[in-house]
Amino acid sequence: RVLSAFQDDADRKSVTVHETDRATMEAGDAVAAVGGDGTMLSAAGLARPIQRPLLGINSGKLGFLANIQRQDLSVALHDVASGNYELDTRNFIEAEFSNGEIHYALNEFVFSRHGSVSMITLSAEYDGEFINRYWADGVIVSSPTGSTAYNLSTGGPIVVPQTDVMVLTPISPHTLTTRPLVLPCEKDLTIRVDPADQKVLFSGDGNNHDLPAVSPEVKIRKSASIMQLIKLSGQSYFETLRNKLMWGADMRDER
Amino acid sequence: RVLSAFQDDADRKSVTVHETDRATMEAGDAVAAVGGDGTMLSAAGLARPIQRPLLGINSGKLGFLANIQRQDLSVALHDVASGNYELDTRNFIEAEFSNGEIHYALNEFVFSRHGSVSMITLSAEYDGEFINRYWADGVIVSSPTGSTAYNLSTGGPIVVPQTDVMVLTPISPHTLTTRPLVLPCEKDLTIRVDPADQKVLFSGDGNNHDLPAVSPEVKIRKSASIMQLIKLSGQSYFETLRNKLMWGADMRDER
Amino acid sequence: RVLSAFQDDADRKSVTVHETDRATMEAGDAVAAVGGDGTMLSAAGLARPIQRPLLGINSGKLGFLANIQRQDLSVALHDVASGNYELDTRNFIEAEFSNGEIHYALNEFVFSRHGSVSMITLSAEYDGEFINRYWADGVIVSSPTGSTAYNLSTGGPIVVPQTDVMVLTPISPHTLTTRPLVLPCEKDLTIRVDPADQKVLFSGDGNNHDLPAVSPEVKIRKSASIMQLIKLSGQSYFETLRNKLMWGADMRDER
Amino acid sequence: RVLSAFQDDADRKSVTVHETDRATMEAGDAVAAVGGDGTMLSAAGLARPIQRPLLGINSGKLGFLANIQRQDLSVALHDVASGNYELDTRNFIEAEFSNGEIHYALNEFVFSRHGSVSMITLSAEYDGEFINRYWADGVIVSSPTGSTAYNLSTGGPIVVPQTDVMVLTPISPHTLTTRPLVLPCEKDLTIRVDPADQKVLFSGDGNNHDLPAVSPEVKIRKSASIMQLIKLSGQSYFETLRNKLMWGADMRDER
Repeated sequence: RVLSAFQDDADRKSVTVHETDRATMEAGDAVAAVGGDGTMLSAAGLARPIQRPLLGINSGKLGFLANIQRQDLSVALHDVASGNYELDTRNFIEAEFSNGEIHYALNEFVFSRHGSVSMITLSAEYDGEFINRYWADGVIVSSPTGSTAYNLSTGGPIVVPQTDVMVLTPISPHTLTTRPLVLPCEKDLTIRVDPADQKVLFSGDGNNHDLPAVSPEVKIRKSASIMQLIKLSGQSYFETLRNKLMWGADMRDER
Repeated sequence: RVLSAFQDDADRKSVTVHETDRATMEAGDAVAAVGGDGTMLSAAGLARPIQRPLLGINSGKLGFLANIQRQDLSVALHDVASGNYELDTRNFIEAEFSNGEIHYALNEFVFSRHGSVSMITLSAEYDGEFINRYWADGVIVSSPTGSTAYNLSTGGPIVVPQTDVMVLTPISPHTLTTRPLVLPCEKDLTIRVDPADQKVLFSGDGNNHDLPAVSPEVKIRKSASIMQLIKLSGQSYFETLRNKLMWGADMRDER
Repeated sequence: RVLSAFQDDADRKSVTVHETDRATMEAGDAVAAVGGDGTMLSAAGLARPIQRPLLGINSGKLGFLANIQRQDLSVALHDVASGNYELDTRNFIEAEFSNGEIHYALNEFVFSRHGSVSMITLSAEYDGEFINRYWADGVIVSSPTGSTAYNLSTGGPIVVPQTDVMVLTPISPHTLTTRPLVLPCEKDLTIRVDPADQKVLFSGDGNNHDLPAVSPEVKIRKSASIMQLIKLSGQSYFETLRNKLMWGADMRDER
Repeated sequence: RVLSAFQDDADRKSVTVHETDRATMEAGDAVAAVGGDGTMLSAAGLARPIQRPLLGINSGKLGFLANIQRQDLSVALHDVASGNYELDTRNFIEAEFSNGEIHYALNEFVFSRHGSVSMITLSAEYDGEFINRYWADGVIVSSPTGSTAYNLSTGGPIVVPQTDVMVLTPISPHTLTTRPLVLPCEKDLTIRVDPADQKVLFSGDGNNHDLPAVSPEVKIRKSASIMQLIKLSGQSYFETLRNKLMWGADMRDER
């Protein structure tokens, strides 16, 4: 059984999840989310503990995750019911605070300046080895899935989902030679607010979380938690890229 | 007479200006500021209404504005006293609010997302003609003087001071084809928070100013207010660029 | 009288100009070019010595210069005949060789590596003052008109035509802190192949010119030569920008 | 036994390899190369068929590969002789032509415009699936090892060596939304000159190779061939990054 559990509201700015959704989701074999990629991120977060595959039905333009057009819905549901699909598995990344708190994100964690346009300084190390002290508006730690979101807007590369990496991308870095850094994702990438008394906004997939005041450092790694995206036959990551980034629609003239 | 009026504090994070500074400054023929470029921005703001030329003495590394090394101070003061200098005139840019309030900046005005990592949307028009609706972390409106500051960190070009332009640079724009835009600076560049109810941080040279709630739009133009920087013989903008951006110190190997 | 003198060939890769064109052009009051912006560049070069205004009729997608849609041609011709138009004046930039040879370009001059992927080194000075020694694939010197062409592809800013500047943009620079530089355009910007024995490709608006072997340096400045583009009422530079760069057509989802 | 086999010439522009080097190299247990990273690339190419580990002794500034300072040479040789080192294994990438020819590179393969500044069009597919048709000055296919070389100059990310990826980076792309793409490296990334009659320069680690005229397409993948770099205790990739890219030496002032 496939139960539709989500729908973003009219202006697509927020997602309303009804009280009953969790129970509803557990009763089904899969979760269908109707909306855009923002809706999919919320749905993925809710579906994570119960481990149900997700079907992303786009209410507007085609999404990276919400990859089924509304008009194709009945065909898609039929395909799903008859087992005619693949599961595209994406790992969450997880952020562990110094107080033991753990947060999950499918796209990215962001450390950002807060309340002023002054830069912040953040230290990064991987598997205990010092990488750099960033002097910037902030940094993004993105999964391959999130590489086409905020990471892309700040100059980070596109990363194909089937790679075991994460990307550490500085936001408007003061040091002009710091660049996006592609790292393995098995060990801990630690981001430390240094000095600790800076005002820093921390978020995962767009949701703010308060950093621990005493020891504001975060260990980020690939999570064992997964999101299984239902992928119908004929769907292609590269085709979605070309469509979403309009690679074929160049309007400038040749030189 | 040259009277030293400023000095930044030990960690160079903030500027302490004593109560007497304004009177002291008016009593002199020039204002000497000791610190970094941040100190110079504050000094320029204070010297603006009284129109005194500025002498920038760098307490640390060479600055774009604080361009006199501390060890050269006595020579510099002697040169100034004997009239052996040029005045490097820089125009402020000014921001006029819909309620008539006016703010000045030497470097840049910034409109930024506030309190979350969600993007904001800002409309821009020049001389009444619509440019674009930006979907980004924000935008920077930079003077040539400010082009080597925040603007540079976000991918904007370096602009030689003797040009009559300003730069409109989007910060981490969602639309990947929006790029820094160099405009004339005589007419009004209007930036509008659109829709008006978004949380937007507005600042000039790093100082926050509350936008009018009802009609959050700002008209930015080259100001008639000027800053006159005392420039000793032998000082060169391009040399400062090369030093500050370490153009000669490339450490990577040839290919 | 308006005489159509140009038409690019079917695959829009090259422009065929008939023997009679020069005479034909001189007989008319204006020159109409049918094609894309590449055709317009050729037409502008041919029209330069005889100083006739240009009407750019686009045979395909809308151009920055070829700004009249084919279907609007008869209306446009009527408007031109009745004087219902403005002239949008653009200055050529000119390149003077050490041997006295002068070349003109509407968009840009390019110095590029030639025959290998090895970098070249080029020195730049403005008005006799040393700017930098670039270690790169090459440099572009672009007019405002050319800022949306090759310059944009290499990270240079968009420059509104009514500004008295040119842009010096390094191509894939080895030194990561060298950035596009916006300069005044009245004085000479000198680019020197240094050392002189490097293999360097030099071109203006896409046409190759052999640099003098003995003293391979080029002085570039705003030319007194102008191109007058016929601009019909209702045409807007910013609208063309939005259309050509598809600023309104963002396909990625909000964050 | 460690035998020094290489030394770049005085101006570090080219490498002279003596006739006897191959035999000399086979007689030793390791190959020591004295020079910069360019020398190391040549040494790696020569050492590839005989599979000897490489010791990179830098004759000038510290290299990514030539990571032993000349003054530390005797200590380094002693450490090597006593087995006090690790082997840092890097895979070559290999390029297979349609005529069966195979070339190897440690850093990158480059497809570039040739003889003019006109763009070229290149198609890319991964594991038989179409990625995009690039309209650019060319594309770079870089290994993690090569990510800090040409790839970095064109806006590509830094990729830590212990990742199983390669990077496809467009050079000065006309389509502003095409970005560096991080791909797995096990399957074939095929780059096709399309249409086939374009003038394209193809090179591996800076050496030009003629593409087959009839079917100018190249399949690129991670090679089974490896380079084993001798890494002494205390050497760190991130430390080299910080030194080479001068991350700690920022000269601009805070904002």
